Amino acid sequence: MIERFQKLGVQLRPHMKTHKTLECADIMTGGSRRSIVVSTLAEASFYADHGFDDILYAYCLPFDKVERCASLSERLDLFQVLLDHPDALEQLRKRPLRDGRLWHVWLKLDCGNGRAGVLHSNPEALRLAQAIHAAEGVELTGVYAHCGNTYNCKGVEQIQAVAQETTNLTLQFMEKLKGVGISCKSSIGSTPSCSHPVQDMAQLSEVHPGNYVFYDVQQSLIGSCSLEDVAVRVLTRVIGHCPHRNQLLVDCGWTGLSLDGAGKLPTGYAVIEGHPDLKLLSMTQEHGRVEPISGKLDYSKYPLGSLLTLIPYHACATAMMHPVYHVHSEGRLVGTWTPTRGW
Amino acid sequence: MIERFQKLGVQLRPHMKTHKTLECADIMTGGSRRSIVVSTLAEASFYADHGFDDILYAYCLPFDKVERCASLSERLDLFQVLLDHPDALEQLRKRPLRDGRLWHVWLKLDCGNGRAGVLHSNPEALRLAQAIHAAEGVELTGVYAHCGNTYNCKGVEQIQAVAQETTNLTLQFMEKLKGVGISCKSSIGSTPSCSHPVQDMAQLSEVHPGNYVFYDVQQSLIGSCSLEDVAVRVLTRVIGHCPHRNQLLVDCGWTGLSLDGAGKLPTGYAVIEGHPDLKLLSMTQEHGRVEPISGKLDYSKYPLGSLLTLIPYHACATAMMHPVYHVHSEGRLVGTWTPTRGW
Repeated sequence: MIERFQKLGVQLRPHMKTHKTLECADIMTGGSRRSIVVSTLAEASFYADHGFDDILYAYCLPFDKVERCASLSERLDLFQVLLDHPDALEQLRKRPLRDGRLWHVWLKLDCGNGRAGVLHSNPEALRLAQAIHAAEGVELTGVYAHCGNTYNCKGVEQIQAVAQETTNLTLQFMEKLKGVGISCKSSIGSTPSCSHPVQDMAQLSEVHPGNYVFYDVQQSLIGSCSLEDVAVRVLTRVIGHCPHRNQLLVDCGWTGLSLDGAGKLPTGYAVIEGHPDLKLLSMTQEHGRVEPISGKLDYSKYPLGSLLTLIPYHACATAMMHPVYHVHSEGRLVGTWTPTRGW
Repeated sequence: MIERFQKLGVQLRPHMKTHKTLECADIMTGGSRRSIVVSTLAEASFYADHGFDDILYAYCLPFDKVERCASLSERLDLFQVLLDHPDALEQLRKRPLRDGRLWHVWLKLDCGNGRAGVLHSNPEALRLAQAIHAAEGVELTGVYAHCGNTYNCKGVEQIQAVAQETTNLTLQFMEKLKGVGISCKSSIGSTPSCSHPVQDMAQLSEVHPGNYVFYDVQQSLIGSCSLEDVAVRVLTRVIGHCPHRNQLLVDCGWTGLSLDGAGKLPTGYAVIEGHPDLKLLSMTQEHGRVEPISGKLDYSKYPLGSLLTLIPYHACATAMMHPVYHVHSEGRLVGTWTPTRGW
């Protein structure tokens, strides 16, 4: 990802939300510890405490967190917040930063994703950008669009169509801003779009993908990657034989995998590596039920105590369930990485 | 729950899996710090480290954890394991405990739940009980059945029918054991059955419910409790207005609630307290989309920064997402409780 966007001349600002570890952050920033996006203030503080800077908290400013954001803004070289409503701007104006520092503010634009952001077609978007630009003690740092609608795509062509559309709408908005005398950064992102960028993305200032640090089954189905690119697994052990139900029990429940992906795969909640004939049918807190997709289970192939390897449907959701990641290389355990949690 | 089973003359062995905190464990054991069930060895070690004893690890012995189980068995007055297969018994025999200590083993019986356990009707159940009883260095401590099939019930009558059936099948198995000269404890459990016990449960040695420490929307729908009995909430803040979609955004995604309960409630993934007209439609990692069940949203009732209160569908799943619980009494924060995590 680093090389891809160096070639395009676009700043990569990787998202930390999938892994929330120092080690992955070092990999994703090439060791610079600069230019990252976070989804929670817990992440922001964790990275700030470990020497990271140029941190964008890309989450519509929760009003109860203004003081913590102010504190990070006064402490770091560059802490950046995001908003999509005039009431949030008002919150920032009511809390001017010390020492003449400016609030660095990104405007969240909705270019078709349908979650946060002012709708690109809404005249309010330009008015809010102008209000941010004009506000005392506040700087309009950039315009930020998340093309999460790439998650509805199948294949590179569809991904690139959404990437192109989001890029076009964002660049059109930048032109509107230029028209009223405002220039600032622009950023779009999502793992599918950044895995297959379109040439026009070279006109953006930044991109902000995150999931690619691990990838997952979902990304392979979208077309962001192949299944071989997925770097995260849950190892689970056979703990029960249930011949009367033609099932195995494994020691991975939703505490180890999450319930994400329900109903999405013929193999159930995950892909069981090397066993395309098996399905992870259901999970309770600490149990998973595994059955053959068809036919009778050959229990001699799965003795009690043997291991199965689950490739998660959604790595962000699975990673969130683990207080520690065990890092393997060529079958050897080479480290344990500890994510931050909370908000 | 303590009073209910004192009256029935049955030992309550509360399950720690829902909360995994010292504070709730003290409440559930009435401060005795004795007689608990855990779902992971991380819980077992956590409670052992904090002065708890008489701990039952009610999970079909994972073979990679035999040594850790041995260590807990040699360290505590009473650490108990569970199994449902002769191979697991063989694992215990291969690791005799020091100082003449015995492995305390419960046999897991499946009385219709359809997860772990030897099926009650399988002649293997009696053979395995006899093998445990006869094995050197091993004691058959009890017979354990989880009536998780009460989760398919609606109303007290159905719950009690399952409780009665599980009790009957367990007591019939105890009679069979007696017939071959074996006596040991018996235990059944689940929050629905223990919330509405049948009289015959008085003939059991123990019960082992867990979720009742919080209860949740699911339990209220089953009939274990009323919605007013539910003790756990997720507070979430309005962070976005999306009039073009007739939606609000809130700062609770699946990291704060879990995806459990999908498709189960007319109000979406949770009940929004005091707002029966609102639905938590969908969640991504840190965002929830809220919409009215019908009609147009009145945004003046939900200004940015205002709070909504979510009552979780499944408290076990929601609690698992939180690194700390904030404990409230009459609107005041009175403490923070920290659960253990991992395996």
